[in-house]
Amino acid sequence: MSPSSNLQLQHFHVNKAARAKVNKQKPCVLWFTGLSGSGKTTLSNQLEQALFDRGHRTYALDGDNVRHGLNKDLGFTEHDRKENIRRVAEVAKLMVDAGLIVIATFISPFKTDRDMARSIFEPGEFFEIYVDTPIATCEARDPKGLYKKAREGQIKNFTGIDSPYEVPLQPDLTINTHTLSVDQAVQQLLQLLQLHE
Amino acid sequence: MSPSSNLQLQHFHVNKAARAKVNKQKPCVLWFTGLSGSGKTTLSNQLEQALFDRGHRTYALDGDNVRHGLNKDLGFTEHDRKENIRRVAEVAKLMVDAGLIVIATFISPFKTDRDMARSIFEPGEFFEIYVDTPIATCEARDPKGLYKKAREGQIKNFTGIDSPYEVPLQPDLTINTHTLSVDQAVQQLLQLLQLHE
Repeated sequence: MSPSSNLQLQHFHVNKAARAKVNKQKPCVLWFTGLSGSGKTTLSNQLEQALFDRGHRTYALDGDNVRHGLNKDLGFTEHDRKENIRRVAEVAKLMVDAGLIVIATFISPFKTDRDMARSIFEPGEFFEIYVDTPIATCEARDPKGLYKKAREGQIKNFTGIDSPYEVPLQPDLTINTHTLSVDQAVQQLLQLLQLHE
Repeated sequence: MSPSSNLQLQHFHVNKAARAKVNKQKPCVLWFTGLSGSGKTTLSNQLEQALFDRGHRTYALDGDNVRHGLNKDLGFTEHDRKENIRRVAEVAKLMVDAGLIVIATFISPFKTDRDMARSIFEPGEFFEIYVDTPIATCEARDPKGLYKKAREGQIKNFTGIDSPYEVPLQPDLTINTHTLSVDQAVQQLLQLLQLHE
């Protein structure tokens, strides 16, 4: 416990490379962006299952497990939405350091926030996945009834209604949910990770 | 991608139990509390190495990887120190959900903050480890030169100097660093996790 033994121990520190090796995978984050109701969660769930079935170590970050815990102090002002994305990106970074493949699903409508997220990762660790579904389709699905509330003015600053969605200009992958089945989309994602069979 | 297929997919969601099973471990958090210089980091490093060598999936959260990222917006006011601990506890919870054994090393001098951390975990998931080292020893070591600065008034609200450390009343384990070697302490920690050989 002396300072010198303390220094010595640095050599043995378990790190990202060691964790990646035992997990037999390259830790990274797949950042799903798209409108509410675009299918991000469906794709995320199916992808995580596919990765799990192949023996990979994963974690899915989404509004459900973040907004009620880590970010429960945040609302939906411009500042708070930005801070929400910042914290999620930092947690994803810690999880990538922990050797995991992280699947983050957040509307994340602003390019500047998505670019900020990418900027804290090493090259090749961050994949921006644009889930491209027309807003008419998202609104027709309206799985949580949010579009209806937004149209009625009960929710303010709702992406696609009275707040903009900035379409990714250079995503690592665009998933057109009108032309691809979920299974086909998952295959494309596995291919992106070079994990297809 | 229809709402109905969305519902169906819920059955297949990868969860904590599934991750614990493939990782062959019970996910939990070991929360090390103690004065600056008490030996928390030394113990944490050695424990993580011992767990890694046994094939366990771990992650160590500490000031180094949190203060420069997730919590870089926080200072050292009472509010910010509380928020620092709250966020770390929430990240640890997400990582436990991800199937990991999390080692958190934070001075965390206040009982109310440590109790808050414990409160967000399920019973049996949170272990409070008190690293019990006399302040005279910590100050003599002073590995980062912080006690010197605190004595000189360059650092305010320094735990043990001009800010209190509330000794844990019912920790899950107390490690007396004057009577135990690092190896012996690690054995006690493995025993606590029922992982001793």
